[in-house]
Amino acid sequence: MSRYWSDIVHRLTPYVPGEQPALAHPVKLNTNENPYPPSPRVLDAIRRELGDTADALRRYPDPSARKLRETVAAYHGIRADQVFAGNGSDEVLALTFQALLKHDKPLLFPDITYSFYPTYAKLFEVDYRTVPLDGGFAINVDDYAVPNGAILFPNPNAPTGRPLALAEIERLVASHPDSVVVIDEAYVDFGAESAIALIDRYPNLLVVQTVSKSRSLAGMRVGFAFGDAALIDALNRVKDSFNSYPLDRLAQAAATAAYEDDAWFRECCAKVIASRERLAAELTALGFEVVPSAANLLFARHPGYDAATLASRLREKEIFVRHFNAPRIDQHLRISVGTDAECDILLDALRGIFSAYVG
Amino acid sequence: MSRYWSDIVHRLTPYVPGEQPALAHPVKLNTNENPYPPSPRVLDAIRRELGDTADALRRYPDPSARKLRETVAAYHGIRADQVFAGNGSDEVLALTFQALLKHDKPLLFPDITYSFYPTYAKLFEVDYRTVPLDGGFAINVDDYAVPNGAILFPNPNAPTGRPLALAEIERLVASHPDSVVVIDEAYVDFGAESAIALIDRYPNLLVVQTVSKSRSLAGMRVGFAFGDAALIDALNRVKDSFNSYPLDRLAQAAATAAYEDDAWFRECCAKVIASRERLAAELTALGFEVVPSAANLLFARHPGYDAATLASRLREKEIFVRHFNAPRIDQHLRISVGTDAECDILLDALRGIFSAYVG
Repeated sequence: MSRYWSDIVHRLTPYVPGEQPALAHPVKLNTNENPYPPSPRVLDAIRRELGDTADALRRYPDPSARKLRETVAAYHGIRADQVFAGNGSDEVLALTFQALLKHDKPLLFPDITYSFYPTYAKLFEVDYRTVPLDGGFAINVDDYAVPNGAILFPNPNAPTGRPLALAEIERLVASHPDSVVVIDEAYVDFGAESAIALIDRYPNLLVVQTVSKSRSLAGMRVGFAFGDAALIDALNRVKDSFNSYPLDRLAQAAATAAYEDDAWFRECCAKVIASRERLAAELTALGFEVVPSAANLLFARHPGYDAATLASRLREKEIFVRHFNAPRIDQHLRISVGTDAECDILLDALRGIFSAYVG
Repeated sequence: MSRYWSDIVHRLTPYVPGEQPALAHPVKLNTNENPYPPSPRVLDAIRRELGDTADALRRYPDPSARKLRETVAAYHGIRADQVFAGNGSDEVLALTFQALLKHDKPLLFPDITYSFYPTYAKLFEVDYRTVPLDGGFAINVDDYAVPNGAILFPNPNAPTGRPLALAEIERLVASHPDSVVVIDEAYVDFGAESAIALIDRYPNLLVVQTVSKSRSLAGMRVGFAFGDAALIDALNRVKDSFNSYPLDRLAQAAATAAYEDDAWFRECCAKVIASRERLAAELTALGFEVVPSAANLLFARHPGYDAATLASRLREKEIFVRHFNAPRIDQHLRISVGTDAECDILLDALRGIFSAYVG
């Protein structure tokens, strides 16, 4: 607290990201990173941009990330003016809150979802209401049929991984033509259907994606929004009032190259999906209740063991999973899908903890 | 305009950055980039982070940029909790507007200064008043002795390059103990005195710097704020409500390495300063009136030639300088200091334009 702070600072509840342990070889299943490296073309593209002296780095990057946006637009079969690029999908979401979600009627999002949403809402003073997931952590589109200025949720949802069918999303978007509907598709490439296919038909639909998960570039901070040009224009107006150059030269080169290697992307996603199904089966065999997931994570609870205690015991073994001390989900663990070898280390550790358990 | 926009979007006046021409070899003296490449240690550090497969890029970066902040703190002889790191000093300034400059009384900044300031103020609805520079484009500290909630200006000022003595800045900070005073030192390393030396004594002083100019890393987007821990805490609270990971892994590695090679930094700055003095003398010999500069730029007008016309004629020759179509300065050009060879191309072009001039 300080008299020098703007009023808003006193009212914030900052987001707490998952731990980045400084250990040499943690089994890190807590922040949904990809267990496989990015495409070799990413390395080539960064090296090309650096050249022999890194001389290019003395120059500002393209503030509009034109080449990146054109590459991603071509990949999705849309136009570059339907693509916004930002410093990770977290920045894209923040700018979306400021540019598109502040209206007289409240923003709606699920009660159990990405925990950054209420933080953004407080920062930008966006009035919001939460809509409860059902008992199986599913989103029911009909529950959003209440007065609202905008609707936002991830598909698959976080931290559950549970997907919603594209037909249901279209039904929601079509039935709220006066509201901006934002679908946060951070995890979509691991088994859900993207709503990008709908943006030409619905001027109220914005889709957010990231290279952090399925393209193995969490370390480079690149995210996107896709939608009607008028929605993208709003994001650009706020971005150009905030920071002209959010994406550095190497981030632009890396993300562009990642979209140019579709075979690598598909292969990594397929491996993660196979590992997820295997891990889900093994966890179920250990007595966990596992939420059906189309993401690179599993959300699971064990009726016999306290979740916070489990997370803590795993941490002692340098195995990191995420536990949220929040209503309805404080007995769940969110486990990122690693390699099969990492999943086996986790499973062995759980078996050891269970056999020695004193609750 | 769209019914889906938040109200604020309709009221914005986005900043327009200097042009990034797509030409192969422009003489680019329009965005104050350094004419020399970054330290070779920057390239080494990026290559080390990449390794053989760029595997590190699949992991999120350190959200607090701890190693970078510790390195920069040690460089300046301060503590890491007195350092905030952001995605370029533009982002640092934006977060500063939101976190520290919104008060009941208005923010003050000069009438002629970095043109992003009024844009930030509109985005965050910060009430502001401008304080005129004197006829020689100097800041007079006594002109700020009016009711205010905060004070902000660059030292050296933009786009003039004109510096203010540290003793004057201290007098201002000391005489406004209830106001946050922000000194934007983007250009300080080219000949002005940094106010970082004062932050231990004045809890109301925030100093902003960047690696874009003096450390040749405009392409990597890293900036800093230095100040009392309570001011830095406000910036962190807003940052962690906006984007947890604003600096990617390669940006953190690059900026850290740049601070570890002080000899390279000093040599580049000395070369730019020598070229500036030479260019100032040559422009003066051509009849320009040149504002005294302690930055890597010169702000100059020629009484015989229209500035916009000059900028346009230079552009035809693929020589880029910046012209601002704004009150009091529309007859000036802002010329970044390039290598001596680039300055000579500019001077030759001006001589050619003058000899053929039809106004």
